Amino acid sequence: MNAAEFRKIGKEMVDYVADYMEGVHKRQVYPDVDPGYLRPLIPDSAPQEPETFEDIMKDVEKIIMPGITHWHSPYFFAYFPTASSYPAMLADMLSGAIGCIGFSWIASPACTELETVMLDWLGKMINLPEAFLAGKDGEGGGVIQGSASEATLVSLLAARTKVIRQLQDKCPGLTKAAIMDKLVAYASDQSHSSVERAGLIGGVKLKMIPTDDKFSLRGSALQKMLDEDKAAGLIPFFMVATLGTTSCCSFDNLLELGPICNKENIWMHIDAAYAGSAFICPEFRHLLNGVEFADSYNFNPHKWLLVNFDCSAMWVKKRRDLIGAFKLDPLYLHNHSYQVIPFDEMLCPHFQHWQIPLGRRFRSLKMWFVFRMYGVKRLQAYIRKHVKLSHEFESLVQKDPRFEICTEVVLGLVCFRIKGSNELNEALLEKINKTKKIHLVPCHLRDKFVLRLAICSRTVESVHIQHAWQHITELATELLKKENEQKMNQ
Amino acid sequence: MNAAEFRKIGKEMVDYVADYMEGVHKRQVYPDVDPGYLRPLIPDSAPQEPETFEDIMKDVEKIIMPGITHWHSPYFFAYFPTASSYPAMLADMLSGAIGCIGFSWIASPACTELETVMLDWLGKMINLPEAFLAGKDGEGGGVIQGSASEATLVSLLAARTKVIRQLQDKCPGLTKAAIMDKLVAYASDQSHSSVERAGLIGGVKLKMIPTDDKFSLRGSALQKMLDEDKAAGLIPFFMVATLGTTSCCSFDNLLELGPICNKENIWMHIDAAYAGSAFICPEFRHLLNGVEFADSYNFNPHKWLLVNFDCSAMWVKKRRDLIGAFKLDPLYLHNHSYQVIPFDEMLCPHFQHWQIPLGRRFRSLKMWFVFRMYGVKRLQAYIRKHVKLSHEFESLVQKDPRFEICTEVVLGLVCFRIKGSNELNEALLEKINKTKKIHLVPCHLRDKFVLRLAICSRTVESVHIQHAWQHITELATELLKKENEQKMNQ
Repeated sequence: MNAAEFRKIGKEMVDYVADYMEGVHKRQVYPDVDPGYLRPLIPDSAPQEPETFEDIMKDVEKIIMPGITHWHSPYFFAYFPTASSYPAMLADMLSGAIGCIGFSWIASPACTELETVMLDWLGKMINLPEAFLAGKDGEGGGVIQGSASEATLVSLLAARTKVIRQLQDKCPGLTKAAIMDKLVAYASDQSHSSVERAGLIGGVKLKMIPTDDKFSLRGSALQKMLDEDKAAGLIPFFMVATLGTTSCCSFDNLLELGPICNKENIWMHIDAAYAGSAFICPEFRHLLNGVEFADSYNFNPHKWLLVNFDCSAMWVKKRRDLIGAFKLDPLYLHNHSYQVIPFDEMLCPHFQHWQIPLGRRFRSLKMWFVFRMYGVKRLQAYIRKHVKLSHEFESLVQKDPRFEICTEVVLGLVCFRIKGSNELNEALLEKINKTKKIHLVPCHLRDKFVLRLAICSRTVESVHIQHAWQHITELATELLKKENEQKMNQ
Repeated sequence: MNAAEFRKIGKEMVDYVADYMEGVHKRQVYPDVDPGYLRPLIPDSAPQEPETFEDIMKDVEKIIMPGITHWHSPYFFAYFPTASSYPAMLADMLSGAIGCIGFSWIASPACTELETVMLDWLGKMINLPEAFLAGKDGEGGGVIQGSASEATLVSLLAARTKVIRQLQDKCPGLTKAAIMDKLVAYASDQSHSSVERAGLIGGVKLKMIPTDDKFSLRGSALQKMLDEDKAAGLIPFFMVATLGTTSCCSFDNLLELGPICNKENIWMHIDAAYAGSAFICPEFRHLLNGVEFADSYNFNPHKWLLVNFDCSAMWVKKRRDLIGAFKLDPLYLHNHSYQVIPFDEMLCPHFQHWQIPLGRRFRSLKMWFVFRMYGVKRLQAYIRKHVKLSHEFESLVQKDPRFEICTEVVLGLVCFRIKGSNELNEALLEKINKTKKIHLVPCHLRDKFVLRLAICSRTVESVHIQHAWQHITELATELLKKENEQKMNQ
C-alpha cells in the first residue's frame, strides 16, 4: 500500500471508527459466542497473495465484531472504565506514524522530553507535592508505564534493590539471597492481584493485612503486623497503599500509614489506578492527602482520564532509586554522539532504566492532545458527570427496599445487592449477563457476593443509568417472584 | 470532539501521516536539539480551556518534529529496524476504537481468539514445530508480549517457578530462598542487556558465557560452565540462546546447546528479536534449526515484519508452565457467567496469566491486517530486499581497501570499520552523526570499536545505500587526510 492508497483507505477507516463509536450503543454489549468460535471462521494459515482492505473489513464485521465485549457501550458497567477519546486516537495515529522507539533521550529527544513535561503537567493537575515533579532541577519525576501492574512491580524492585544495598553496606558479609529470604512487603487484603504478583515475581514475601469495616487499611493494623514480623526476624521493606480498590473503591488511610512507613524505612507505593483521575477535581483531592509520605505514586489516565490505553502515570520522589534497580548500559544502546553531551539524567532521562521493557511508543502525545483539546475544566466536568451518575444510580438502589448499598459511593462505582442470600445475588447477576442488555461483574466483600456497577463509557448518560436500573429491577422482580413461588410450593 | 468533528479532523490526520511518511526522507534524520530543549517551548501547565487541533498541529511541526530521530527515514541505519506499514496503522486505528482490554477471554473473546490463531499463522510461516502451536488441542501456543525483554523475563520466571516446584516436590524441606540462592541462568556474552536484566529482576545469578570467534555460543562452552557450576553446588535452570545478536547479528549454536539443555533439565529460551522475521523465507529457515529443543521462542514482528510496535511474538511448548508462574484469580477478574463455561485454557486462554501487565490492547489485529494485505510472498520479498541491500553495502565496503568487514553478513546488518585504531573509527562515527545525513550506532566486538549499518526503513533503496557509502567514504577520506597530515607534521 502506498501513501495515496493510505490516504483513501485511512479516511474510510476514520469513518468506520466514527460509525463504530456513534453506533456502539446499538450493539449488544456482551457477545453471544462460545469459546473457540473464531478459529473455524478463518483460514488455517496466512494467505500467500495480498487480499483487499474491503475483504478484511467485511471480516471485521462478520468475524471480529460478534466476539467483542463493547467496553465503550454506554451499557458497559463492568470492571472499571478504559479510556477512549477522539483526541487520544488522533495522537495515537501520529505516534504510529512517527514510530520512534524512545528508550533513550537521543533515540528521539521529543519523545522523552514531552513525556517528562506531560507528567509534570499532570502532577500539577492533581496537586502532587513538588518533590515528585521533574521541574527544572528536581530529584523526582514521572514516567509512563504500560500498566499499574508494571508500576507496582518496578517500585517493588527499586525498593528491593535499595534495601539490599543499605543492608550490604552495613554488613558486607550478607548475601543477597540471605536478605531476600527475610524481606517482607505489605498490602491490604483489598489490594489488586497485581500486587501479589509483584511479590511473586520479585521473589519476596508479600502479606495481606486485614482492612477495617470500610475496607480501608489502617495504621494500627500495619503497625501490629510490622511488630510481629520484626520480632520474627523479618525485614519489612515495601508497602502498597491503594486508593480506590478494585472490589469496592475503598481508600487506605495514607495519613496513618505514611508516617509509619517513613519511620520504619519502608518504601510506600500508592496505587490509585482507577481513582487517581478524580484528583484533578479539588473536591476529591483530599483523598490523596498523605501522598507526601510516599516514595512512588501511580494512577492510570488510560482508565478514567480519556487517554486511550496504554498510559499509566507513575512518579517517584528520587529517580535515582528507580534507575538504580535497572541500569545496565551496553554500548549499542549508547549513542556515540550522545556521549559527548554531559550526562544529566535530569535533562535527558533514559526511560529504558525506569521500566521493564526496553522499547516504548511515543505515548505522551496522547496526554498532550487530550489535555489541550479538552482543557482541565472539561476533564474535571467529565469526572464530575461520572460521579453524579453513580450517585444517581445509588439513589435509585436506595429507593428500592429490596436492595442495599454495600459500601459508600465515593466516585464512579456502586456496590449493591439484593437483601438476601449470595445465591440470590449470583442468580441475579447470571440473569443480567445472560440477557446481555447491560454488563456487570461481581466482587466479594468479606462473605458477601456483591454486584458492581461502574460508570464506564464516555457517552453514558442518565438515560442509560435509568434503563440499567429498570432492567435490573425487572429481572430481580422475576427472580424474587420465582423464589416466592418455590417457597410457597415447599 | 464529537464524531462529526473526528470525521473531519481524523481525515486531516490521515493526510498528515501520509505526508510525513512520503516526506520523511527530506527531513534531517537526526535532530539538532540539545537536552532540555522542549520544556521552554511549551507552557508550564495544562490549559484550563480547550485548544484547537490546528494549534496543536502547528506545535507538532514547531516543537515535536525538530526533536524527532526519524526511525523511518531511509537514511536511518541505527540500532535495528522498527516496523512501520500502512496496514498496521489501519489496524491500530481500529484497535484504538474497539479499545477493549483483553486480559481474559470474556473481556473480549475476539481479542484473545484472533491472537491465538495469528500466532499459529505466524508459527506456520516460520515452520515452527507443531508443539509450539495452539492448534485445536495442543499443549503449546503463542502470545503477544510488549517486547523481547518481557518475553525473556516471563520465560525466566516460568523456569524459576518450575524448578523450585520440582525441587520442593523432591525435598519438601527446601525453602524457596535456599533454592533461589543456588539457581543460575546462562546466556552468551553477546546477549542483549535485557537478558542480564531479567536475571536481576528474577533475583537469580546470570552468567555470560564466552562465545567463539564468530560470536556464537557453542555447546562445549556451555557444558564446561555447567560442569563447574554443578560441582560448586549451583543449580543451572535457564539458558537464553540468541539468534541475531544486537551487536553483530551472530547466531548461537542451537543444535549443540539444545540437547545439553534438554539433558540437564534447563529451560532453553530463544531470543530471535531481530532475526526471527527472516525465518519466513525458506532460505533463512535453517538458522532456526534446533528450535525443537527449546521451551520458549520469541521474535519481534514489530522489528522487521511490518507490524508496528508493539508486537513481540512468543511461543511456549507447555503453556501450563507459563501460567503456573503467574496465575492468581480474584473474583472481580472472573466473569460470573464465564464460570459456567467449563474451564478450558486451550479454547479460551486468559492472557493475563501469560504476561507481566494485566491489561492488553487488541494487537493481533495488526498481524491480521499485515499478513492479509501483504500476503506471505510480499513479506518474504520485503525481507529479501533488505538482505540484498545489506550485501550491496557489504560489497561496497569490501571494494575499498581502507575498510574491513568485521563479521559475516547474514541478514540486514553490516559490521564494518576502517582498518586502523579504535580512535579513528570513533572519530569517523562522530563525524557521521554530527553531519546528520545518515544515522548509525556503534558496537564493540571484543576489543574493536565497530560501526553498525542496519537496513531499517521500509522505503530504503539501493540509492540510499549508495549515498550512505559515498558519504561515509568522503568523511573517511577527510579524516585519513587529516591524520596523515598530523603524522607528517610530527
